Amino acid sequence: MRSMAQDHPPARLTPPTPETLARFAAIVGDKHAIRDPAAQTAYLREWRGLFTGKTPIVLRPGSTAEVAAILALATETRTAIVPQGGNTGLVGGQIPHEDGAEVVVSLARLDKIRAVDPEGNTLVAEAGVTLQRIQEVADAESRLFPLSLASEGTCTIGGNLSTNAGGVAVLAYGNARDMVLGLEVVLASGEVWNGLKALRKDNTGYDLKQLFIGGEGTLGLITAAVLKLWPKPAETTTAFVGLPDIEAVGAFFREARQRSGPALTAFEVMPALALSFLERHVAGARNPLSRPHNWYALMDIAGFQGDGDSATLAEAIIGDALESGLVEDAAIASSLDQQAALWRLRESLPDTQRLEGGSLKHDVSVPIALIPELIRRGNALIENAMPGTRPLSFGHFGDGNLHYNVSQPPGMDGEEFMRRWWEISGPLYNLVLELGGSISAEHGIGRLKRDQLVTVKSPVEIEMMRQIKRALDPLGILNPGKVL
Amino acid sequence: MRSMAQDHPPARLTPPTPETLARFAAIVGDKHAIRDPAAQTAYLREWRGLFTGKTPIVLRPGSTAEVAAILALATETRTAIVPQGGNTGLVGGQIPHEDGAEVVVSLARLDKIRAVDPEGNTLVAEAGVTLQRIQEVADAESRLFPLSLASEGTCTIGGNLSTNAGGVAVLAYGNARDMVLGLEVVLASGEVWNGLKALRKDNTGYDLKQLFIGGEGTLGLITAAVLKLWPKPAETTTAFVGLPDIEAVGAFFREARQRSGPALTAFEVMPALALSFLERHVAGARNPLSRPHNWYALMDIAGFQGDGDSATLAEAIIGDALESGLVEDAAIASSLDQQAALWRLRESLPDTQRLEGGSLKHDVSVPIALIPELIRRGNALIENAMPGTRPLSFGHFGDGNLHYNVSQPPGMDGEEFMRRWWEISGPLYNLVLELGGSISAEHGIGRLKRDQLVTVKSPVEIEMMRQIKRALDPLGILNPGKVL
Repeated sequence: MRSMAQDHPPARLTPPTPETLARFAAIVGDKHAIRDPAAQTAYLREWRGLFTGKTPIVLRPGSTAEVAAILALATETRTAIVPQGGNTGLVGGQIPHEDGAEVVVSLARLDKIRAVDPEGNTLVAEAGVTLQRIQEVADAESRLFPLSLASEGTCTIGGNLSTNAGGVAVLAYGNARDMVLGLEVVLASGEVWNGLKALRKDNTGYDLKQLFIGGEGTLGLITAAVLKLWPKPAETTTAFVGLPDIEAVGAFFREARQRSGPALTAFEVMPALALSFLERHVAGARNPLSRPHNWYALMDIAGFQGDGDSATLAEAIIGDALESGLVEDAAIASSLDQQAALWRLRESLPDTQRLEGGSLKHDVSVPIALIPELIRRGNALIENAMPGTRPLSFGHFGDGNLHYNVSQPPGMDGEEFMRRWWEISGPLYNLVLELGGSISAEHGIGRLKRDQLVTVKSPVEIEMMRQIKRALDPLGILNPGKVL
Repeated sequence: MRSMAQDHPPARLTPPTPETLARFAAIVGDKHAIRDPAAQTAYLREWRGLFTGKTPIVLRPGSTAEVAAILALATETRTAIVPQGGNTGLVGGQIPHEDGAEVVVSLARLDKIRAVDPEGNTLVAEAGVTLQRIQEVADAESRLFPLSLASEGTCTIGGNLSTNAGGVAVLAYGNARDMVLGLEVVLASGEVWNGLKALRKDNTGYDLKQLFIGGEGTLGLITAAVLKLWPKPAETTTAFVGLPDIEAVGAFFREARQRSGPALTAFEVMPALALSFLERHVAGARNPLSRPHNWYALMDIAGFQGDGDSATLAEAIIGDALESGLVEDAAIASSLDQQAALWRLRESLPDTQRLEGGSLKHDVSVPIALIPELIRRGNALIENAMPGTRPLSFGHFGDGNLHYNVSQPPGMDGEEFMRRWWEISGPLYNLVLELGGSISAEHGIGRLKRDQLVTVKSPVEIEMMRQIKRALDPLGILNPGKVL
């Protein structure tokens, strides 16, 4: 299919002149305007090396007012801006193009927690605060900020919101989008929109914040957010369960969800191959169950009363499932250490694939009921496309979101495997689309999937997106060549 | 403050000619094109009589394709369109203007449930399906569709989504916005956007559905939606609690929420005056507690295990609060009948105010922690503005959303009271804004609050809304003079 993506760079932008660069630097001060290529490296390389960009200057503004001045100047001078948070994105949205004409704006110095309101269950954070710090500040007030993902020590809330991050707590708490009450955004013109309302309900006009959440920095720069906090569970019970097949995983999930309701706060899955990878590459990792199973589920049940209710419930659900044969074996963590060890299995998994040679990543989602069909047909397609490949689909079963990754056949040349990616990804994406699914469930579009976007969306939808983009960024200075 | 609202009608629209009306009628068939004024009445009068409009024709399309043809013709002929669901809106958004130049499009005949997927916990409904029918279809599959409001027997899901309806279950399940996975929308041009994805996670581009949810029919016409379903609780315990003051309500709410977590599914409040109104005007209504209290809370705790866990938890929370003096008395429903009777008190309350003469309604929200301040200062302001008025602020405490209604002083002329509304509403809205609140928490803007919108939003935000409106409805044919 022909790509309908628009040309990059947009014709109306101009590379910044030395004079323009001096004016940008004057806004943030020379100390925070990085021109030295060596010092720029950390801002220019996508962490897996998929993209390496070039820029004349990295700006590190220290306030919303400085961000506003940068965008006003960018509008005046037709300069392209690439916003960046913790540089942990997986689709290259945060990396400038190789032509060296784009200015990188790092929001990392906007790192203040402006307010915490444990009574109202809200927290106001600037864009550059790391996700982990927000979790910790909430925890210190006996509250929970549930967004949780592998890069939480490095990623920033501004990036999390700009990409509508997912993670392991979506099942009970939703995506990043669902955790926001209000935003402060600097628009392309340099105007500041103060939408920092801390209200659970506000039906006065269009919900504009939704455009910037998941907008990947193409419609405006998020500088601060009012986040929702939740009551912190008094206890959480973690169980690791062995199951005979993916259909049994589905049946067990439905049973667990029906009996736990919102107390089921995580339900992750991994296939047998995952345990082999973990045991081979992660020191101390071992199957917590006495023999291998075809599938494993990792689940958390929360309790709010602190009287062991979550363990009682987990034991009852698993006991019944063992009796009916749905579940083959299970281990329930009996200490925080055991709990952490079970979760480490899940969290170490992405890294192990790197050590098994070439690995293709597919962040896909389908309606939950269709996961068994996706895996059955997907694995067959992949084997057919390239015999001996090793599909490893794991992740957020409860959200219908799998990281349907594929490791190269043993012995094959890794680079050759990666060059032939479309032989596998093409059929797999087509299957996902046939099942009504998404080719980017949580990672976004960025630059990596930009050409694919126009092939998976209807022309009506693409045109609506372009209309919104033109309305809010008429000159196209915000993260050009990303998403659209 | 000067209103910045734009003129109505927009200059570029033209009243439909007889020929245009005939073409509109041909799309839906004469049987579904209502020109008889008597037959039009039900579509032209806001149910409390606040607005009565005029139209040459009411169209009742029977399919998305017919809606699309109507909007294509409206675009061609520059005809204004007013979409309507169950005509239960509270701000006049569904009523045409008095000039008789606007065509009403009722979505009521789009009344099919297109699909139910209990395994994937989704349901696809057309815009004209009533909320109650959706609740019933979900219930028949042992699932819960939690949106619940007084008009649920009449209002339609299309209207609920277009206004981002709230109701009594927001605390645990969110607003209507939070219950949607995908939409089908007919755009101003007549193009159909099929965004009916049934995915929990999909980060491919801007989340366009958010614009139409709460857009009050000014950006496009929602014709169908994929809705989320939830596990149905096995049991729910309802309690009615008497408290000494609004501060105690806040402290008790925090305690109940911390100990119940997401199992606390409703937390409504009403002041002493509410019980007087109920006992005076509702047959059989009586205080379930043995003596009057200054404040009452009505709460639901859900249980998913069906072993009485919700009752045990409610008793523990209330027992501790009685012991500490936070709560003065409480009644826990011990049958479904008793449960219904407690909820009837809450649901009958709005009607009683009509019977006490002139009544001003204020659908406001503030950060939850500021509710006591809102009520203390608000009641003083109101008494100061017009001595003898009777403030009755009740509703969704757990969401920070109160219906801060005010009944006229006994003996005053009702019409005079209503004419002098701004003497009370003005200071109250100013207080709400000072506390960072909203003057329309769940009812929307429509026509009733259009002039106020531009006084409570920043020019930056109003301009963004106008840019979005111009991008998606460049001729301004969709519900002109509403919201913006």
